Amino acid sequence: MENGYCSMYAAAAGKRLQQLAERPYDLTAPDALTAADRLERYVCRAGSLRMLYAMQRVTDEVLTALQDLADECRLVEQFKEMRRGAIINRIEGWPSENRQVLHTACRDIFCQAPAAPTATAQAQGELEKLKGFLNDVETGHVGNANGEKFRTLIHVGIGGSDLGPRAVYEALRAFGRKDRDVHFISNVDPDDAAAVLEKTDLTTSLVVIVSKSGTTMETMANEELVCQVLRRNGLEPRQHCIAVTGKGSPMDNPDRYLRAFYMYDYIGGRYSLTSMVGLVTLGFALGYEKVIEFLHGAAEIDLLAEEPDVRRNLPLLLALLGIWNHNCLGYPTVAVLPYSQALHRFPAHLQQCDMESNGKSIDRNGRRLAGKSGPVLWGEPGTNGQHAFYQLLHQGTEIVPVEFIGFIRSQRGEDLEVAGTTSQQKLIANLLAQSVAMATGKEDGNPNKYFPGNRPSVLLIGSSLTPEVMGTLLALYEAKIVFQGFAWNINSFDQEGVQLGKALATRFLECMTGGQSQPVSLESKLLEAACKTG
Amino acid sequence: MENGYCSMYAAAAGKRLQQLAERPYDLTAPDALTAADRLERYVCRAGSLRMLYAMQRVTDEVLTALQDLADECRLVEQFKEMRRGAIINRIEGWPSENRQVLHTACRDIFCQAPAAPTATAQAQGELEKLKGFLNDVETGHVGNANGEKFRTLIHVGIGGSDLGPRAVYEALRAFGRKDRDVHFISNVDPDDAAAVLEKTDLTTSLVVIVSKSGTTMETMANEELVCQVLRRNGLEPRQHCIAVTGKGSPMDNPDRYLRAFYMYDYIGGRYSLTSMVGLVTLGFALGYEKVIEFLHGAAEIDLLAEEPDVRRNLPLLLALLGIWNHNCLGYPTVAVLPYSQALHRFPAHLQQCDMESNGKSIDRNGRRLAGKSGPVLWGEPGTNGQHAFYQLLHQGTEIVPVEFIGFIRSQRGEDLEVAGTTSQQKLIANLLAQSVAMATGKEDGNPNKYFPGNRPSVLLIGSSLTPEVMGTLLALYEAKIVFQGFAWNINSFDQEGVQLGKALATRFLECMTGGQSQPVSLESKLLEAACKTG
Repeated sequence: MENGYCSMYAAAAGKRLQQLAERPYDLTAPDALTAADRLERYVCRAGSLRMLYAMQRVTDEVLTALQDLADECRLVEQFKEMRRGAIINRIEGWPSENRQVLHTACRDIFCQAPAAPTATAQAQGELEKLKGFLNDVETGHVGNANGEKFRTLIHVGIGGSDLGPRAVYEALRAFGRKDRDVHFISNVDPDDAAAVLEKTDLTTSLVVIVSKSGTTMETMANEELVCQVLRRNGLEPRQHCIAVTGKGSPMDNPDRYLRAFYMYDYIGGRYSLTSMVGLVTLGFALGYEKVIEFLHGAAEIDLLAEEPDVRRNLPLLLALLGIWNHNCLGYPTVAVLPYSQALHRFPAHLQQCDMESNGKSIDRNGRRLAGKSGPVLWGEPGTNGQHAFYQLLHQGTEIVPVEFIGFIRSQRGEDLEVAGTTSQQKLIANLLAQSVAMATGKEDGNPNKYFPGNRPSVLLIGSSLTPEVMGTLLALYEAKIVFQGFAWNINSFDQEGVQLGKALATRFLECMTGGQSQPVSLESKLLEAACKTG
Repeated sequence: MENGYCSMYAAAAGKRLQQLAERPYDLTAPDALTAADRLERYVCRAGSLRMLYAMQRVTDEVLTALQDLADECRLVEQFKEMRRGAIINRIEGWPSENRQVLHTACRDIFCQAPAAPTATAQAQGELEKLKGFLNDVETGHVGNANGEKFRTLIHVGIGGSDLGPRAVYEALRAFGRKDRDVHFISNVDPDDAAAVLEKTDLTTSLVVIVSKSGTTMETMANEELVCQVLRRNGLEPRQHCIAVTGKGSPMDNPDRYLRAFYMYDYIGGRYSLTSMVGLVTLGFALGYEKVIEFLHGAAEIDLLAEEPDVRRNLPLLLALLGIWNHNCLGYPTVAVLPYSQALHRFPAHLQQCDMESNGKSIDRNGRRLAGKSGPVLWGEPGTNGQHAFYQLLHQGTEIVPVEFIGFIRSQRGEDLEVAGTTSQQKLIANLLAQSVAMATGKEDGNPNKYFPGNRPSVLLIGSSLTPEVMGTLLALYEAKIVFQGFAWNINSFDQEGVQLGKALATRFLECMTGGQSQPVSLESKLLEAACKTG
């Protein structure tokens, strides 16, 4: 209870949940899904999204215990404190980042009294800059040396500066301007940049370089690579390159960049999609109005997340059901399976946001956790996955809780009846069928046709994947991750675990370039073993 | 021991391995990686690939026990029997597919006496047809109604007819003909097809429809969608569409298709990449010679897999190390992390091939397994992943064994020195550094900077990702999966677990179209709960 924090491992409700988990609700019993109006009652709404959770192994008793856990651990209060600028990115008693966590401020622009006024004012300032810039690009006021308009944007970043923007750009391509195109370069693998540059006309391309520190190794290497190709084509990098970076970073330099957009130190990379990290690229691709719709969808969740009733607070409920499955029922992974091809990169973004946030082993006092923190998150779109890994989901020895995502209508509306139903109907039918099959299972005399069932899932259903719904979905998962971190009493906002690999990589590079004095170091031996030919 | 099969759960070596797993090798001890020439000795080669496994928690004693397990379970003998046409796709005493498993025959074309002559002759027949067809496309002998050459290929398939061809096409794009382009449509989500068709000039497009049964729901719907758009553009589908299907299937119909290429019932979808399922598309994109190089790389592994010494049999060793980690050390997942952007879809293909093969709960006599079968497999390319989920790999409470893949040289050779090293050097340095960091960990007074280590990995290193090396890598994983299935004594070649979802989807579709008589069924209630607005 130090810092006023209580983890689920210390909470009385945590212990009660462990007891309840010894006899979880049996989804394979006759009428298990329809009894006591379960399908109608186990629904939670947020904006135009609804979550059906009748296919979870929970009862009203479990939900009550989850409510108690939320109350005991002050989950909603902590969320409120976060939104209002509390310094929660820290480990008590140890050197740490000691920062606020205010990605929510980026979209808190729709109400009169934002929760963190200074941060929201900064976000609004950047939005205004973006609006002006997009207008200049539109009119051709900002263009290339020949006065031509920019038609292509190359987004250069990695991790939080890449996965999120890429996932949402892909998700909303159907709303993209037909006269504009976007490409991404992230990996330090030189083939990544080469493949993009080969197919792009740089003459009419903007290049957005995204790095909060202005020093990210991969991004600096890729920027240099792109700039060299620009010069080789007789183009002046400063006329094509935009920076998205921390104010005062080495990249905050008008001699090198046409414009600089700022991200602030209270926004972590993996939570930065609704800052300029995502919005410059989305604005170019979709137009400014769509960006505001996207932010509006996200803002809706941030407000909802302050609702104390877990049955009405969708992100909190999703977080707690995840804890029930991971900590109480003992399932080590969670799959996010969108029945929407547009969301094909969304699981990769969530994988980053979730696993980098909650893949921790110490609590906010620097003590070893008494139990598990974040699960392994993975996923691919359905129905494709049905023809891939669903065999294991249904009949394997690993049990994987699933978060299905689906939409009633398609984005583009191009559809066709084949064998009496449209493709969109087939998609929805498959989505619902998988959830039921995992839950109920099926007895069969033939052991190879037996399905054990009791494999839990939720269904997140929206009307259609618009920019606004995308914002809702994004903020829903951001808040879910934050709530889970609170419940485990970990700091979900640092990433010390990436440092050791960086330090060792430097030693390998020194070894490669002969800069290391010890010729028989581990590094040189491993290099020799890995790289010798024959 | 029925059928002559012995599972690892029944094997004496299996029990010894469980005992050894109580005190696995400590990778965090001083000099743990360099002691006893470990880095030099724990290397296994296959063609131009080498695997370094010093960063596994194994000793010579463990390797001996793994050898005993392989011998006791007759793993290599079973592989030989498979290659020679034994009917191993079956469950003894129960109705099952009762088929041979002969994907290896597709590439057994380089030696005088193939292991399964009939199947290899069929594969060679299809290869000859493909060669002729590609030549006709090249010369324009086969072209569109205006006599123009085909420049684009649209590949329509799902699951095994999509993930593998897509992964390998992406991996080898650097070798692709500049005058040709390939797109893929898989999902029944109508937005998937719409997004591809929107950007494609159908006039000069070939459409390859891939379905072994000729009845796959998603693929039939997408074919119809594409054909409708062809007709809308005044194009005759029969002049643009090719079938890849089982001989005698509804798609084996010259009235509908320009050509039909055959796949045979002894090749499962997820193992079909080296059949016409993958080769028609790869041949169009890369040319016929590159296809033969790809097959050559795969053939090399098939021969190597018959080597009885586990330390020299790379696929077998990879399989056994996986079993050590999964069954003996208890890790529920495995990550495949390629340090090559070109391999960005390879983990998705492996996820299918592995999890659909080995996500089973009964043995080959229809009895419940005494332990675990296949793990959850997931992954994304490095260095991107380092900025995403590696936090959890280093410091999370879930331990994830990793299979790293990397190459000494880039594919395209476009590179640049920044800060004294090339991007390719940075990529390799990071690859090696991550493996060492996971293994050795790091003590630190600050608990947030403490790395526990003992997180195992292998390094699969090649000189460069060529078509031949891609074939080697593919066959390596196919054989790994097969060996693991043998060790668990499961049938890795059927997929009964996908049937229940299909049956339930049909019921939901009936319910949607009003064809279902019971108005208060589970289906109608769930549809109501999921789809009602407001």
